[in-house]
Amino acid sequence: MALALSLGRRGQGNCWPNPAVGCVLVRDGRIVGRGWTQPGGRPHAEVVALAQAGDQARGATAYVTLEPCSHHGKTPPCSQALIDAGIARMVAAVGDSDPRVSGQGFEMLRQAGIEVQVGVLAEEAARDHAGFFYKTEQGRPLVTLKMASSFDGRIATGTGQSKWITGPEARRAVHAMRARHDAVMVGAGTARADDPSLTVRDLGVAHQPVRVVISRHLDLPLISQLATSAAEIPLWLCHGQGADIERKQAWEGLGARLLPCASRGVQLDPHDILQQLGAAGLTRVFCEGGSALAASLLAFDLVDELIGFTAGLGIGAEGLPSIGALGLHSLEAANRFELIETNSVGGDVMHRWRRAG
Amino acid sequence: MALALSLGRRGQGNCWPNPAVGCVLVRDGRIVGRGWTQPGGRPHAEVVALAQAGDQARGATAYVTLEPCSHHGKTPPCSQALIDAGIARMVAAVGDSDPRVSGQGFEMLRQAGIEVQVGVLAEEAARDHAGFFYKTEQGRPLVTLKMASSFDGRIATGTGQSKWITGPEARRAVHAMRARHDAVMVGAGTARADDPSLTVRDLGVAHQPVRVVISRHLDLPLISQLATSAAEIPLWLCHGQGADIERKQAWEGLGARLLPCASRGVQLDPHDILQQLGAAGLTRVFCEGGSALAASLLAFDLVDELIGFTAGLGIGAEGLPSIGALGLHSLEAANRFELIETNSVGGDVMHRWRRAG
Repeated sequence: MALALSLGRRGQGNCWPNPAVGCVLVRDGRIVGRGWTQPGGRPHAEVVALAQAGDQARGATAYVTLEPCSHHGKTPPCSQALIDAGIARMVAAVGDSDPRVSGQGFEMLRQAGIEVQVGVLAEEAARDHAGFFYKTEQGRPLVTLKMASSFDGRIATGTGQSKWITGPEARRAVHAMRARHDAVMVGAGTARADDPSLTVRDLGVAHQPVRVVISRHLDLPLISQLATSAAEIPLWLCHGQGADIERKQAWEGLGARLLPCASRGVQLDPHDILQQLGAAGLTRVFCEGGSALAASLLAFDLVDELIGFTAGLGIGAEGLPSIGALGLHSLEAANRFELIETNSVGGDVMHRWRRAG
Repeated sequence: MALALSLGRRGQGNCWPNPAVGCVLVRDGRIVGRGWTQPGGRPHAEVVALAQAGDQARGATAYVTLEPCSHHGKTPPCSQALIDAGIARMVAAVGDSDPRVSGQGFEMLRQAGIEVQVGVLAEEAARDHAGFFYKTEQGRPLVTLKMASSFDGRIATGTGQSKWITGPEARRAVHAMRARHDAVMVGAGTARADDPSLTVRDLGVAHQPVRVVISRHLDLPLISQLATSAAEIPLWLCHGQGADIERKQAWEGLGARLLPCASRGVQLDPHDILQQLGAAGLTRVFCEGGSALAASLLAFDLVDELIGFTAGLGIGAEGLPSIGALGLHSLEAANRFELIETNSVGGDVMHRWRRAG
């Protein structure tokens, strides 16, 4: 199952709106098939593994990281494919919460006389599939917030200089993280200040995540890295209802996709932004700031995972804070995160946290 | 030598103004004596090890983390004691930069026919004795700056609440760090806001570091943890020349020691503060903030080691920054620190840095 989980992760960022599943077929103690959900979400992991195993699948045990699908979607159900291939036993990590599956996959297998065991490495699998589960159950993707800052939590100097606070190894690690998410998201301030391309570079990765920019008024420069690459690499703009019609047309003309979102005071409603992104199929979103967007997500308790890179310099109180105003009344009212790991990456500290409780 | 270094560290914080030396005597492959500089600085490590070895010292090899002294201070020279005990060989990590020793210790041993080897684990020893070397060569102690903050670098909420951002394990680790330094230092703002006692607690440590508070006008409350304990545990106050005479008398009456320092603009000159502390015998100072003092030390490049604790919560831009204004013009102008280690301590991240280059 550990192997199936690690195979499954290969699909992360690459197969949305489908879950990134892994499957291993074992017969007589030997691995006869391995698969993971392919780019675009098809074929499913089970189908890939069965194809590899061929006749060897007969009598094998299938280790799958998520309940096999039972419904006819764009592909026939995997449960049926497993039955047809003659597997003897199914070991699954977790059930699928999609109401179209939700136990029916297991039921199909059981009725075909196949022994079904559920719950092996369930916690790990639930974490890997968290984005898919969030989307299915709450309609929103998993949100990972990344912050790269000085050791006093500043993401730029008072004059706006942010290149480079962290070192090349940390930046490379960020590119690898982008590749494992369906989309990279920033606020309009960051898009204007940094003119980022938000692509995955120097990793030999063919697939690019969707770029999402939150801009209430769509008043972003039409000549920028994001604008000029919008025809080739997906660029989605979350904007308010009152955005100027000409700006909307200009962005659509460049190839961007527009997602109108509800407002909440002077900002876009972060809940609604994520609902729109979930409805568009995203399961895992990697937010890279800036401070206003980070504060908005944190204040509404919408950050599921947090990744910090801390560099070996102080910038001082004039610098730009990594998180804007949170309106926190007391320390007890703060949402606490639980440390998953900390490590050095080049000369910087990487720390990873998960929403506590 | 590794053992001698680790023995030597037991004296850190405890034997200033003397260096925290370790000594191991080995004869015929067996350890016959072990010693480290004792509380108050005497007896020296070599004398302790020789006393333990007795007759076994004859023909032994002495491993010492610092060149043995050659001058008659409050004790007769250790070099002579080693010669008198009949050791055959001396292995030292580093030479002593004190002009009263500076090679003369080794010379005495060589002239007595003892083989002398210098430079074993020299880098590690230089680090352990850095405080003593700074004091001898530059007249100032080593400065370790500690910052415990939220992951956005805040040390308190906007309303001043700081208890507790980090967890009990991190606070315990801070107490252990205090114990390894000669003095704990804070600015007047922290002393006023937190009413700290700055003592080492819950570790079974008998010895307390000196408490140093930087207060230009000495306008600290005379009823506070620091004030009421000043008679038992050393409290030193660095103040400006213009401090009120009655306040000075009040603090002296409570048992505090006053150190007048030069001013630099509206602040006390951080260089002069450290020179005064060095002249008073301190070799290792542990600074616990607040943001103004941290900024002042960093801006003048007076931080030798930096220890950060990062907690799993965001406080937001209204919070108190860990470092005040630095007047940094560009990222290139920032002093960079080199990461030594990072680890989890309880639920917090601990990261240790050293001045780079």
